[in-house]
Amino acid sequence: MSERHLYGGLEFSPTTRIRLSPFWPGVQAAGVSTASIYNHVLFPCVFRSLEEDYRHLKNHVQLWDVSCQRQVELSGPDAALLARMIAPRDISALDVGQCCYVPAVDRGGKLLNDPVLIKLAEDRFWFSVADSDLILFASGVAAGAGLAVRVHEPDVSPLAIQGPKAEQLMRGMFGEEISGLKFFRGRYIEFDGKNHLVTRSGYSKQGGFEIYVEGAEHGMPIWNALMQAGAEFQLRAGGPNYIERVEGGLLSYGGDITSEHTPYEGGLEAYCDAEAAFDCLGRDALLRELESGPKRQIRCLTFAGGKVPPCDHRWELSVNGRFAGQVSAAVWSPELGLNIGIGMVESEFWDAGSELCAELPGESRTVTVQAEFFN
Amino acid sequence: MSERHLYGGLEFSPTTRIRLSPFWPGVQAAGVSTASIYNHVLFPCVFRSLEEDYRHLKNHVQLWDVSCQRQVELSGPDAALLARMIAPRDISALDVGQCCYVPAVDRGGKLLNDPVLIKLAEDRFWFSVADSDLILFASGVAAGAGLAVRVHEPDVSPLAIQGPKAEQLMRGMFGEEISGLKFFRGRYIEFDGKNHLVTRSGYSKQGGFEIYVEGAEHGMPIWNALMQAGAEFQLRAGGPNYIERVEGGLLSYGGDITSEHTPYEGGLEAYCDAEAAFDCLGRDALLRELESGPKRQIRCLTFAGGKVPPCDHRWELSVNGRFAGQVSAAVWSPELGLNIGIGMVESEFWDAGSELCAELPGESRTVTVQAEFFN
Repeated sequence: MSERHLYGGLEFSPTTRIRLSPFWPGVQAAGVSTASIYNHVLFPCVFRSLEEDYRHLKNHVQLWDVSCQRQVELSGPDAALLARMIAPRDISALDVGQCCYVPAVDRGGKLLNDPVLIKLAEDRFWFSVADSDLILFASGVAAGAGLAVRVHEPDVSPLAIQGPKAEQLMRGMFGEEISGLKFFRGRYIEFDGKNHLVTRSGYSKQGGFEIYVEGAEHGMPIWNALMQAGAEFQLRAGGPNYIERVEGGLLSYGGDITSEHTPYEGGLEAYCDAEAAFDCLGRDALLRELESGPKRQIRCLTFAGGKVPPCDHRWELSVNGRFAGQVSAAVWSPELGLNIGIGMVESEFWDAGSELCAELPGESRTVTVQAEFFN
Repeated sequence: MSERHLYGGLEFSPTTRIRLSPFWPGVQAAGVSTASIYNHVLFPCVFRSLEEDYRHLKNHVQLWDVSCQRQVELSGPDAALLARMIAPRDISALDVGQCCYVPAVDRGGKLLNDPVLIKLAEDRFWFSVADSDLILFASGVAAGAGLAVRVHEPDVSPLAIQGPKAEQLMRGMFGEEISGLKFFRGRYIEFDGKNHLVTRSGYSKQGGFEIYVEGAEHGMPIWNALMQAGAEFQLRAGGPNYIERVEGGLLSYGGDITSEHTPYEGGLEAYCDAEAAFDCLGRDALLRELESGPKRQIRCLTFAGGKVPPCDHRWELSVNGRFAGQVSAAVWSPELGLNIGIGMVESEFWDAGSELCAELPGESRTVTVQAEFFN
C-alpha cells in the first residue's frame, strides 16, 4: 500500500471503458499494487513498493506492461507528409527501423503529446504515444486537409524490458543480433512464428528494450517466456518507476508538460528544429517563440527537509510572494539521499542555485533550482 | 467497498497527470469510495454503494461532480462550420442556449465521442464531451483545413443536480425561471456575482440540471451552497449511477460504443441526419452505411440466473458456437429484480426474444435480447 494521498484508498470502478492489457493476467499474478489509467488502458505502476521496485530496477531487470503506450499508425501515400505536419523537426532522413522522439504540436506550437515516432516503411509510421488521443489530432488533420492516409490504432501492445541485465536476458532469448541494436533502432524478432518489432528504448535510464507485441493473443506467451528466461537474472514485473524517472528527468506528458506548454518550455529544444520543419503546422508559432525565448521552463528541483509527501497535485512556487512556477513531480531519492522534483519555473527564477518557496500540503518548503537532472 | 473484480483492491498511483476537480474537497468530505479517470480527470463514481446510491437517486436528489465532462470551445468566424464538420445532423436551426446530442464522427463515419453540443452564440459553441480528447480532432480539422476558429478548453466544471427533487432544490436556489427551462435548454444564473450556464440535462433518467461552473474558484462555494440548500431534500453526493443508466439505456462512450462503431451501430439513428449534414466530414461514409444498414447494433439484454458479477471486461456472446456479439455492461437491478445489460449484437441475432450465450468469468449464462431499455 502506498502512502495516503488525496485519492489514496479509493477503488477503481469496474467498467469496460477502461481497456485491459493482454498482459493483465501476468501483471495480476505478479502482485501489482497501484495502477493508473493511461490512454484508456489500465496501467500497472507499482508492485512491491516504489522504493523496492526502484532498487530492483537499478540492479537487475524488469518486465513492464506498457501496453498503454498505444500506436497511432499512419499508412499510405501521404503518411510521411502527415507525420511531418505534426513533428517540429526534420524527419526526412530517418531510416526504416529508426525511432525519433517527437514533441507533437498543434498550429499554436503547443504540445499535444510527446511520442516516439517509428518509421516502419517509407509510407508507414507509428507514433508510440503518451497519455492523450493523438490519433484524433492525426485523423482530424488528415480529414481537414484531405490527405490520402489511413490513421488507425493497430493491435500492438508494447512490453518493456528495462534494467542493467536487460541485455543479457534479451540476447539469451533472441540471439546476438539484439546486442547489435543501437539506441533508438529497431529490428524484427520472431516468436512462435510471428514477427514483432524490438527497439532499444524505454522510459528509464537503466538501458533496455521494448517489444511491440503484435496481436493480443501473443501477449501472455511472450510474457511467460520472458518471465521464465529471466529467472536467472532476478527478473520481476515492474513499471515505469517514479523515483528513477524523476532522477533522470524523464518527463510525463499531462503532468510535467501539458497542452499549455511549448516544446521549448518543456526543455525539449534538442528535439525541435522548427527552421527545418517546413510542413509542421506549428512551425510559425515555434519560430516566434524561438525568437522571443520561453518565459518558463522545466527545471530539476531539490527540496529541503524530510521526505516529501506524494505529489498528487501541483504545488505552487513563489519568491517573496510572487508566482515563480509549479512543482509537477517530487519524491525522495534513496540513492541520492535527497528530495528531488520537476517544476515549470518562470524565467526570472530559473537560474541554477535559485531558492524558491514551495507550498506543500500544510507546509512550505525551500526548493533549490538545479543545473541539470541527476543521470 | 465494491465487490472484487479484475482491478478491485488496487490503489490509484499519485500523479499530477490526473487532474483534480474543483469539487474534490466536497467529494472527499462526502465519503467517495470508488472512482475512475475520465478525460484525464479523477471522476467520483460511488459513495455508499452502487445500490444505496441508486435507491437514493430515484427517491431524492443528488449532487454529482461531473467536472470530467470537459468543454471543447469553438469560437470565431468558422466555429459553426467546424461544429458542422464534426456533427452528422443539421445543427443550423439551433437556438442560442439550446443543446443537442451529437454522435461526433470522423471521415470514416466512426464515433469519436458522443458529446452534447451547446450553442452559446452564433460564433461560439461548446462540445460537452465524453471520454476522449475530441479537442484534438477539432483542432486537427481546424489546422488541416485552415479554419478561422479558436479551439480551446475553458475553465468550466459541470456539476449535475439529478433526481426527482432536483426541480424543487434548483427553484429554491435560483428562482422560478429555472422551472421554465425546457429539456436541453439553458440559461445563465448568477451566483456570487458570477454568471454560470444552467441546462436541463444530465446523465440519468430521473430529471435534473447541470451547472457549468465557470472558474475553478467558484466550485466549492457553489457545491457548499447546494449541499446546504439541499439538506431539506435529503441531498447527497453521488455520481452517474451504473444501475440507473443501464436500466435507461444511457450509453458510455469507450465502453458500449467505441471508435470501432458507427452511430447507427450505436442505435443513435435518431440523432443522425446524414442527408442534411452537408458539411459533415463523415457524411459519405454514413450515407453508405445508411444504405447497407448496420451489421450489429446496441441492444438491451437480460441475463438468467443470480446476480451477475461486475462487468470489468467485455463478455463474448455466441449462439451454437458462432460469434453473436459482446456484452459491454451488466448489473443486477434491484427494482426490476433482473440482471440487465447492454450489448453490441450481430444482426443475425438481434431480434427481441433471441437467446444468446454469454461467457462470464467461469460460467456461461443465457441472455435474452429485449425490444427496448426499461425507462
